[in-house]
Amino acid sequence: MATANNRVKIGILGASGYTGAELVRLLARHPAAEITALTADRQAGQPLGAVFPHLAHVGLPDLVRIEEADLADTDVVFCGLPHGTTQKVIGDLLEARPQQKVIDLSADFRLRDLDSFAEWYGHEHWAPALQGEAVYGLTEVYREPVSKARLVANPGCYTTTTELALLPLVEAGAISTEDIIIDAKSGVSGAGRAEKQANLHSEVSEGVHAYGVGRHRHAAEIEQELSVAAGKPVTVCFTPHLMPMNRGILATCYVRLAHDAGVEDLRACLAGRYGDEPFVHVAAAGVSPSTRQVRGSNHCVIGVFADRLPGRAIVLSVTDNLVKGASGQAIQNMNVMLGLAETTGLEQEALFP
Amino acid sequence: MATANNRVKIGILGASGYTGAELVRLLARHPAAEITALTADRQAGQPLGAVFPHLAHVGLPDLVRIEEADLADTDVVFCGLPHGTTQKVIGDLLEARPQQKVIDLSADFRLRDLDSFAEWYGHEHWAPALQGEAVYGLTEVYREPVSKARLVANPGCYTTTTELALLPLVEAGAISTEDIIIDAKSGVSGAGRAEKQANLHSEVSEGVHAYGVGRHRHAAEIEQELSVAAGKPVTVCFTPHLMPMNRGILATCYVRLAHDAGVEDLRACLAGRYGDEPFVHVAAAGVSPSTRQVRGSNHCVIGVFADRLPGRAIVLSVTDNLVKGASGQAIQNMNVMLGLAETTGLEQEALFP
Amino acid sequence: MATANNRVKIGILGASGYTGAELVRLLARHPAAEITALTADRQAGQPLGAVFPHLAHVGLPDLVRIEEADLADTDVVFCGLPHGTTQKVIGDLLEARPQQKVIDLSADFRLRDLDSFAEWYGHEHWAPALQGEAVYGLTEVYREPVSKARLVANPGCYTTTTELALLPLVEAGAISTEDIIIDAKSGVSGAGRAEKQANLHSEVSEGVHAYGVGRHRHAAEIEQELSVAAGKPVTVCFTPHLMPMNRGILATCYVRLAHDAGVEDLRACLAGRYGDEPFVHVAAAGVSPSTRQVRGSNHCVIGVFADRLPGRAIVLSVTDNLVKGASGQAIQNMNVMLGLAETTGLEQEALFP
Amino acid sequence: MATANNRVKIGILGASGYTGAELVRLLARHPAAEITALTADRQAGQPLGAVFPHLAHVGLPDLVRIEEADLADTDVVFCGLPHGTTQKVIGDLLEARPQQKVIDLSADFRLRDLDSFAEWYGHEHWAPALQGEAVYGLTEVYREPVSKARLVANPGCYTTTTELALLPLVEAGAISTEDIIIDAKSGVSGAGRAEKQANLHSEVSEGVHAYGVGRHRHAAEIEQELSVAAGKPVTVCFTPHLMPMNRGILATCYVRLAHDAGVEDLRACLAGRYGDEPFVHVAAAGVSPSTRQVRGSNHCVIGVFADRLPGRAIVLSVTDNLVKGASGQAIQNMNVMLGLAETTGLEQEALFP
Repeated sequence: MATANNRVKIGILGASGYTGAELVRLLARHPAAEITALTADRQAGQPLGAVFPHLAHVGLPDLVRIEEADLADTDVVFCGLPHGTTQKVIGDLLEARPQQKVIDLSADFRLRDLDSFAEWYGHEHWAPALQGEAVYGLTEVYREPVSKARLVANPGCYTTTTELALLPLVEAGAISTEDIIIDAKSGVSGAGRAEKQANLHSEVSEGVHAYGVGRHRHAAEIEQELSVAAGKPVTVCFTPHLMPMNRGILATCYVRLAHDAGVEDLRACLAGRYGDEPFVHVAAAGVSPSTRQVRGSNHCVIGVFADRLPGRAIVLSVTDNLVKGASGQAIQNMNVMLGLAETTGLEQEALFP
Repeated sequence: MATANNRVKIGILGASGYTGAELVRLLARHPAAEITALTADRQAGQPLGAVFPHLAHVGLPDLVRIEEADLADTDVVFCGLPHGTTQKVIGDLLEARPQQKVIDLSADFRLRDLDSFAEWYGHEHWAPALQGEAVYGLTEVYREPVSKARLVANPGCYTTTTELALLPLVEAGAISTEDIIIDAKSGVSGAGRAEKQANLHSEVSEGVHAYGVGRHRHAAEIEQELSVAAGKPVTVCFTPHLMPMNRGILATCYVRLAHDAGVEDLRACLAGRYGDEPFVHVAAAGVSPSTRQVRGSNHCVIGVFADRLPGRAIVLSVTDNLVKGASGQAIQNMNVMLGLAETTGLEQEALFP
Repeated sequence: MATANNRVKIGILGASGYTGAELVRLLARHPAAEITALTADRQAGQPLGAVFPHLAHVGLPDLVRIEEADLADTDVVFCGLPHGTTQKVIGDLLEARPQQKVIDLSADFRLRDLDSFAEWYGHEHWAPALQGEAVYGLTEVYREPVSKARLVANPGCYTTTTELALLPLVEAGAISTEDIIIDAKSGVSGAGRAEKQANLHSEVSEGVHAYGVGRHRHAAEIEQELSVAAGKPVTVCFTPHLMPMNRGILATCYVRLAHDAGVEDLRACLAGRYGDEPFVHVAAAGVSPSTRQVRGSNHCVIGVFADRLPGRAIVLSVTDNLVKGASGQAIQNMNVMLGLAETTGLEQEALFP
Repeated sequence: MATANNRVKIGILGASGYTGAELVRLLARHPAAEITALTADRQAGQPLGAVFPHLAHVGLPDLVRIEEADLADTDVVFCGLPHGTTQKVIGDLLEARPQQKVIDLSADFRLRDLDSFAEWYGHEHWAPALQGEAVYGLTEVYREPVSKARLVANPGCYTTTTELALLPLVEAGAISTEDIIIDAKSGVSGAGRAEKQANLHSEVSEGVHAYGVGRHRHAAEIEQELSVAAGKPVTVCFTPHLMPMNRGILATCYVRLAHDAGVEDLRACLAGRYGDEPFVHVAAAGVSPSTRQVRGSNHCVIGVFADRLPGRAIVLSVTDNLVKGASGQAIQNMNVMLGLAETTGLEQEALFP
C-alpha cells in the first residue's frame, strides 16, 4: 500500500476546484502521503501553480486530463468532480482497479435510497450497485465502516455541520424530531470556482440572502442521517443563506426539548459524545461559536443555548466548509481507511484574523 | 412651523454617530427641511465634515455641545443619543419647550411597560410620565397616532424588519403565535461608531456568529407589538447574528400556519396589507429578498415560502438598518407629523453594487 | 426636445450591466428625464427588476433587444455596450437618426487618433468619420464642446480620476511631464457584471494585486489628455490594482514639481481651477481623501502632499468609478448638452458606511 | 538549551495581540518548541482561548501579568509589546538574565541611529547600550549575525516586503537610488487589535485611502537598510494605503534602471539572490503577485515588470504582514539563532480562498 519512500500514493481527480486545492494544501504537509496524479480537464498540461498560485511551491505532478492520468500505482483516489459526473467515473475506475480506495467529495454517493437520489438530483443513479457499498463518511459517526470501506461518500458541508450538532441529540432522544429548524449560513467558496454571475464579488459582498428555500438538496442528506439516528423518518426545515465571506458555515438549529430534558442535558449529551474526539468541541455555557475560530482548520465547535420560548433550545455549530465540510474530513477518512492516526496532516490551527 | 424660507427647522442631537450622519444625508436632499443645529459632545467645535468627510459638501452648522445648542427655533428634534441617556435629555427638552416635536432613535421610549423597560435595560425609567404619551413609530402601523404625536419612539432596526413581516399575519390570525422563531442577520453598522474591539474589521470580516442568544433586547420590543396584534401575550425566539458587512438586516422568520391557512394566504395577507404602501413590498413567489436590494433606501421587501415541514412557512424580510431601520423611518415619521407627503426626501433607489 | 410631460426621453442601450443600472438609479430621480427604452439582448422580455431587484420599484419599460428598441422619440441615447461593439451600433443609429444625441460609455470613441485606437484595441476603427466629431466628455474640461456635441465619448473611470487631478497641474506647468507615475486602485465593479472567474468573491476578497502592469488601455487615454494639456507628447506610468471592494477609485499620483513650484502651489492651482465646480473638491492640507467619502456620489476629491523626496509631490484623487467615473458623468454631460443645470439629478450625498 | 522533552522553552510577552496569536498558531506546530509563558496585562488570569477562541484547543499556560511571568527557564522570549514600552522591558529582562535570547517584534530596536530613533519616535532611546548589540532580523540578509545574536529586532511588515524586493537591486547597482517610489498596500491587521474607530469594520471595508503620507515611520527603516546596501544615504518616497482586508501587504515599487540595466537584469539579479531561499520567490515574467497567494504563509513573492516610461521598472512584492512581516519571520530568526533548520514550523502553504 505504501511507496518506496513509505508514503501513500494519492490521485486527485478534479484538482482545479477549491476542494481540490484544499486537498493539496493539506496533503502537502501530510507526513504519510504523496500526490502522484492531479487531473483537471480544461487546465491539462499546466502545473497546478498556474491555476492556484498559492500552491506554486509544492512539488507536484502537472495537471492531466482524467483519461490520461496514470492511477495504476495510486493507493487512494480523491474525487472532486461536479455532481452528476462522478458515478460513471468511479464506476469505471473501480471496475478497472477493484482494490482502489476512493473518497468521493461530490454528492453522487451520499443518498442510500436510489429513489430519493433520483428525486433530488433529477436523474437515475448511474452506479446503483456501487451505491450499496458506499459508506457515508461522517467520520465521527461512521468510523468503523469507513475503516473497512473501499468507497467513501464524503458528506456535504452543510450536512456535516448540522449532523455533528444534532445526531447525538436525536439518538439520545433529547430533542423532538417533529420540528427541527436549521437556519444555515455559508461562505461562497462552497459554490465552487465556476464562473457564475451570482458568485461575483459585486453580487456577494455587502449583503445576505437565503437561497434554495424549502428545497435545498442537503436537506435530503440531513434527513437521511437524522432518520437513522431517530429510528423513524425525520423531516427538517433547512434554509441556507449566502454570507459575504469565503469560508465558514454556521448552522443555527432551533429544536424542541424532549419533555424531560433541559438545556444542560443537551450540552452534557454532546460533551459526552465528543469528549474524546479531536475535532469536535462543545463550547462552554454562554459562548457562541464563530466561524472565524475554525477557518482553515478541521475543527467543529458546537454551542448550546436556552431559548426564550419555553421547552426549546438553540444549538449552534460551526465548521470551515472546505476543511471539515469537505477536504479535511476527506483526509480524516483516508487516515481511518489506511489505519493512520486520524489527525495526521490535520493538526493546523485556524487562521485568524 | 416653517421658516422664512418655508423650510422646517431641524435639530439633531448626537450627530456624530451613524444614524446622525444618515439623518443628515437624507435631510440634505429633503425639499422641506433645513438643519439648524447639530450636537456632538466630543467633537463640538468642528464642522460635521471633519467627522464625516462624505458630508463635507453639505452646508451645515458646526457641531456644538448639547447644552450649547440653540433649539429655540427648531420645529423637530431628532435624538440619536445612546440608550439610557435620552430619557432625561428629552424630559428637559420638552419641559423647556412643550411644543417641540421630538423623534427619538434610541430605545428609551419604545417599551410601554415601565417594569419591562426596567427589566430589559437595567434601570428604572427616568421619564415615566413622558412614556405615556410616546408613540411607537412603526409608521405603517401607527401612522394615525404618529400624525398627532409630540414624541415618537422610533423602532429598532431588527424590530422594524421583523414586525413589518409578522404583524399583519398575527393580526389576521394566519399564523400561530405559539412558536415564532426569528433568525436575524445584521450588518455591523447597527452597533454604531463606538470604539469596540468586537467591531474591528479584523474581528468582523470573513466570519459569522450569533450574539445575545436568547436575551437580545429587541425581543422585548417585538413581543410588545406582536402581543398587541394578537390580543394576548406572545413570546418569540429571536436570535441575532453579526454579518461581515456594514448595512442591511435580513429576518428569516419560521412560523406555523394557522390550521386553515396556506402559504399563499400569507402572501395575500401581506400583499393586501401593503398594497398601497410606498416602502413595503411583497416579493413574487419564489423570489428570495436580499439586503442588497434595499441598501441605502427606505424600502422593506418581504418574501414568503413554503416550508418542507408540513404546516409551516418561512417569511423573509429585508431592510437597510440605518434607513428604514433607523433614520429613514424617523424622517418618514417626521413627514407624517408635519403633514408632508410621506415619501418626501426618501425616494432614493438602493445603491447596488 | 422635451415630451408632453416636459421630460427628456431617454434610451439606454445595454441596461443589464452595472453602468446601465447606475444610469437608471440616477435618472429615476432626475426631474427632467424619462426613460423610454431599455435594451439588453440576453434578458430581453424581462422587466429590469428581474435583472436588478434594487430597481424593481422604478416605473420602467421592459428590456428589449436592441434591434427592437423604439428609439424614434428618444432625445438622448446612452450607450453602455461592451468595447468594440459600439462603433457600428452608434454609426447605424446616427445614420438613421442624425439629430439623436448620443453619450457613449464605452472606450470606442475616446481616442482621437485612429492609429492609436487600432494599436490599443486590436482592430481598426469602424466609424472613423464619427470619431472626428466625438467630444471627449470630461465635463469640467470640455464643457463648451460638450454643450454643442451630438456624440460624447464618456471618459474611463481611471482616466477621469487621474485627469481631474493632473490636467490643471500640467496645463499650468506646475509639474514635470517627464516621469508621472500613477498608482491606481479600483473596486471590482469596474470590471462589469460578466461571468469571469477572476471576479468571483473568492478570488477578489481578502487580497490585492496589480494587473495590466505597463500596458493598461487607460494609459492611452490619460496620455492623450495630458499631451493636450502639455502641448507636447506625454508618456506616463499607469499601474492599476484590483481592490477587494465594489466601488471606488483612488489614483495616487507621484509627480516631480516644476523647479520653481512648491506643494502649496499645486494645491492653489487645483483650488483655483475647481473653485466654482460643484463636483470637484480640493481637500485641506494634511487630509487624505478616501473613496468612502464619494461612494455613490458624483464627487471627486483631490489631496496634495509633500513627498519625502525633495522636489516631488503626491497627488491623491478619489471618485466612485460607477458615478463620476461612468454614469454620473454621463448624466452630467447630458445636462450640459441639454442646457439643464449641470447638477440636476446628481445632488445625492455619498453613502457611508 | 532544550527541555527535558527536548523542546525549546518559549515565552511570549504581549500574547493578546494579533502578532502574539500568530506566534502561538505557528509555534503550536513547531516540533522543537514549547510555549511555557504567555503574558497579557489586561487579560491576566484567563486562558488564551478566552481571548482568541481559535487557539482554544492548543495546550497552553494561562495568561499572566508580565511581572508575574516565570521566565527563568525560557530559552527564547518573543516580545510583542507596543512600541515605546519595549526598550525598558527588554533592558530589565537582559539585566536579570543575560543569557536570554530575545526577539523583539516592536520597532524599539530597529533603528541603529539613536538620533534617528528619537526623531521618528518622539522620545530618546531608553536602552541605548542594548541598541548597539541588536541585530536587524531580516533573515535573508542578516542570517549570519542573527545566528549569533542575543537580541534580534524583527523588521516591520512594510519594510520586510519592500526590502526583500529592493535590497539586492540596490546592492547590485541595478537601479538608481535617487527616486525610489514605494506605493504600499496593507490589510488592517497590521494596525493591531486595539480599539480604534479608524479600524472598525464600517470604517475600513468598501474603501481605500492613503495614510501617513510622506511621514510613515517605516520609511526610516527602509532608508536605513537601503543606505547600507547602497553605501550612501538613500531617501525614499513611501506611501502606505489601508486596504479593506485583514492580511497581506503589496509593495509596488517604481524604480529607475541603472543606465546599463534592463528589466530582465532585475529579474535575474533577484532570481540569483533568492535561488536557494525557501521563502522568497521570483514570479515568472508577466505574472503579477497577489497577497492571496501568501496569506497565512511565510512566503514572499516578487514580480518585475517593464514600465511604459523608458528606463524605469516596476517591482511588486507580497507578504502576509502577520507572518513573514512579523511572527513568521520572528520564528525564522529563532530557528537561525538556535541552529534549527530555518523552515521548521513554517512550512504551511497559504490559505486560499
